[in-house]
Amino acid sequence: MPHLPRRSICILTFVLPAVLVGWAPLAAAQAINSEVLIAEESDPNRLGWMQGFPPAPERVIGQPDANYFSFPKMRWTVCHFRELLPTKQVSRGLGAPVPPAYALDDAINEVMFTPLDGNEPMSWQTSLNENYTDGVLILHQGQVVYEYYAGCLDEAGKHGAMSVTKSMTGLLGEILVAEGALDEKALVGDILPELADSAFGNATVQQLLEMTTGLAYSEDYSDPNAEVWAYNAAASPFPKPEGYSGPRTYYEYLATVQPEGEHGQVFGYKTINTDALGWVIARTTGESVTSLLSSRIWQRIGAEQDAYFTVDSIGTPFAGGGLSAGLRDMARVGQLVLNEGMIDDERLFPAAAVERIRQGGDRQAFATAGYRTLPGGSYRGMWWMLHNDHGAFTARGVHGQTIYIDPTAEMVIVRFASHPMASNAANDPTSLPAYQAVAEYLLEKAP
Amino acid sequence: MPHLPRRSICILTFVLPAVLVGWAPLAAAQAINSEVLIAEESDPNRLGWMQGFPPAPERVIGQPDANYFSFPKMRWTVCHFRELLPTKQVSRGLGAPVPPAYALDDAINEVMFTPLDGNEPMSWQTSLNENYTDGVLILHQGQVVYEYYAGCLDEAGKHGAMSVTKSMTGLLGEILVAEGALDEKALVGDILPELADSAFGNATVQQLLEMTTGLAYSEDYSDPNAEVWAYNAAASPFPKPEGYSGPRTYYEYLATVQPEGEHGQVFGYKTINTDALGWVIARTTGESVTSLLSSRIWQRIGAEQDAYFTVDSIGTPFAGGGLSAGLRDMARVGQLVLNEGMIDDERLFPAAAVERIRQGGDRQAFATAGYRTLPGGSYRGMWWMLHNDHGAFTARGVHGQTIYIDPTAEMVIVRFASHPMASNAANDPTSLPAYQAVAEYLLEKAP
Repeated sequence: MPHLPRRSICILTFVLPAVLVGWAPLAAAQAINSEVLIAEESDPNRLGWMQGFPPAPERVIGQPDANYFSFPKMRWTVCHFRELLPTKQVSRGLGAPVPPAYALDDAINEVMFTPLDGNEPMSWQTSLNENYTDGVLILHQGQVVYEYYAGCLDEAGKHGAMSVTKSMTGLLGEILVAEGALDEKALVGDILPELADSAFGNATVQQLLEMTTGLAYSEDYSDPNAEVWAYNAAASPFPKPEGYSGPRTYYEYLATVQPEGEHGQVFGYKTINTDALGWVIARTTGESVTSLLSSRIWQRIGAEQDAYFTVDSIGTPFAGGGLSAGLRDMARVGQLVLNEGMIDDERLFPAAAVERIRQGGDRQAFATAGYRTLPGGSYRGMWWMLHNDHGAFTARGVHGQTIYIDPTAEMVIVRFASHPMASNAANDPTSLPAYQAVAEYLLEKAP
Repeated sequence: MPHLPRRSICILTFVLPAVLVGWAPLAAAQAINSEVLIAEESDPNRLGWMQGFPPAPERVIGQPDANYFSFPKMRWTVCHFRELLPTKQVSRGLGAPVPPAYALDDAINEVMFTPLDGNEPMSWQTSLNENYTDGVLILHQGQVVYEYYAGCLDEAGKHGAMSVTKSMTGLLGEILVAEGALDEKALVGDILPELADSAFGNATVQQLLEMTTGLAYSEDYSDPNAEVWAYNAAASPFPKPEGYSGPRTYYEYLATVQPEGEHGQVFGYKTINTDALGWVIARTTGESVTSLLSSRIWQRIGAEQDAYFTVDSIGTPFAGGGLSAGLRDMARVGQLVLNEGMIDDERLFPAAAVERIRQGGDRQAFATAGYRTLPGGSYRGMWWMLHNDHGAFTARGVHGQTIYIDPTAEMVIVRFASHPMASNAANDPTSLPAYQAVAEYLLEKAP
């Protein structure tokens, strides 16, 4: 590693109750309040990861390196999961992509906002490096008004969506509920007898969709006894260690989950809810999440690129975090959700699916979880409702992944990022108020 | 496994000197002259591999199952390599695919031919199941006259091209030679100092392209001391076993190859030549084979789908056998080669690249290797020249993969297959004379 200038960045010490990672090798060792390379310095092209034939040994990121999701390597890895792991395609089909309309507005760079916890105003343009943005695209009234790529990403690349994946799985779930194919009052154990004796057995589909299940499951990577370790071991597609006797797949793991507390009382952000929902969807439709996301969404939106999911050892897509996709295709999905299922003049799913999401979940149950950057929010259909004046709602993934939908401003923002901190609380201060400021700017200039 | 009717099929007992497999778990245990499920009985959909959530345990094909490339599982695996292994994309770009022109001719089904070693005439249609065809497409004068899918494949699927991959790598090599970027007389050791002390060091690029290198390398899987085992271990992208001290990548393996005999004397079909060529290409151009295949070919031919390569533990694409692609896209490549680099009115590479391939390699050196189904043939640019009346040449992959180009008949046939025998000698009897018969049929009806 060449000597690079560093600077101290102050990261919020507030840690989310349960941060999604779900990747076997993790960012657990990330320092808080320590010196971290800034965006330009940690640019994966500048650092030379995986460049050369072969790359220099200290520039290799690959199996069996247990460190590929640590910062700054992670800034390369987020665009290259398929080169490290088995994956399953989300086909866009074979037709011609539908190019988006463009009405670029460079003045967005100058839009100012005040970061949460800050006093100094910051410009939109400055925020991009501040929060390690790899790509961001803003749609206003269906037209691209802003598009930016950095780090490992370009327009033909794909980026890990992390927990934004949950919102794709959740959307499929809400579509099935709205279409009457899935009863949100049904017990998970009735749909999946394999889960009848687990904590999921007497939870409802709605409780999955709102993550108000009572599960003995901790994603605290600093705790060696946290359940997430067993989950990760089960989820790995690689050969299990000699003598391993635990669950070998997502499904097997889910069957072992024990109850903790009552269902329906408290919001608890636990990735395994989404994996259980993915299983419910597969059992209900006879299609995997990859296949259904392709046939219901990806093949219908004029997508430019196939997307993909990482999989476990029996090909189960990681419904809780395994999606990688192109930035523009994520924007197409965001616009489809803003339009409540309409694309051009075609309806892809009942408006009720998005209406249910926008109603939000149980705000009291959400408040109990204490998300400081999302006061008054809620969670429904695996999307985050801000319940702000604009009715904004968002898909959120660790390290800064976002689909941010502002119906009032007719705005969709999609962002891929590789922030060193595995927490949205680190991204929110320079992103949530920035999104709001751009929304206000667009509202002002809107005809 | 349900009890299924079987029948005895007589497989040629002639075994190719060196059959490509290159996959760690192999088809080594395949019986010769034994009872093997016929095509309909071994159809992967009928056998139910990987169906259900989860699939029944006896229907799972996944890591760490060491048996995924054995017949009949292999008939599922050939369409699903990316779900089992890390892979690297060959991007088609983001534009609209160029749909092929169609002039379908069902009468091709009735074209008759006499299999090699046979007496009874057989129809084209009958041959498809006889040789376990998963997909075949025939282009005549640039139009699709025949298209067929079976087994695991459909028009939106991808299939392992196996050693047809070599012909893609070889084509890139010949393009670079024709453009003057690569000197075919250069020594491999001068281009790749890392290989200077290996058997490759004093071989020329041309000897790689013709596979007339003298290498101590056996692909005889029945020999536990064959070098292919060390190669497979090095190539695996998965964590190496405890205590493993051998080479960890394709590149590291290539550096260990010892000489045997003199270069330039005898044709020896050894996959490692193509991996060395892939390295030569990468060092020469600064681009990996995946990247160059994308920029030079896949993005230029109106491809419908991205393709991909399997990779080793440092992301090196398996230049000797790792490509999976859509059938129509392979046909587009075949047509481009038939047209010697022209597509529509655009030239993608110098005609000399294909002219060199069509000249063929050293026929005497080839004859020594004793390919019974290819008498009088030769090998050049990693393509097989038949040196027949039509000037036909072909890319060939284990289990029946084919690009067959007949310049006289203005015909391209691409075929994906999952024949139980890991040898082209098992496919040739019902394919080579069938291709010739279709060529004659098309010549007769041509305007």
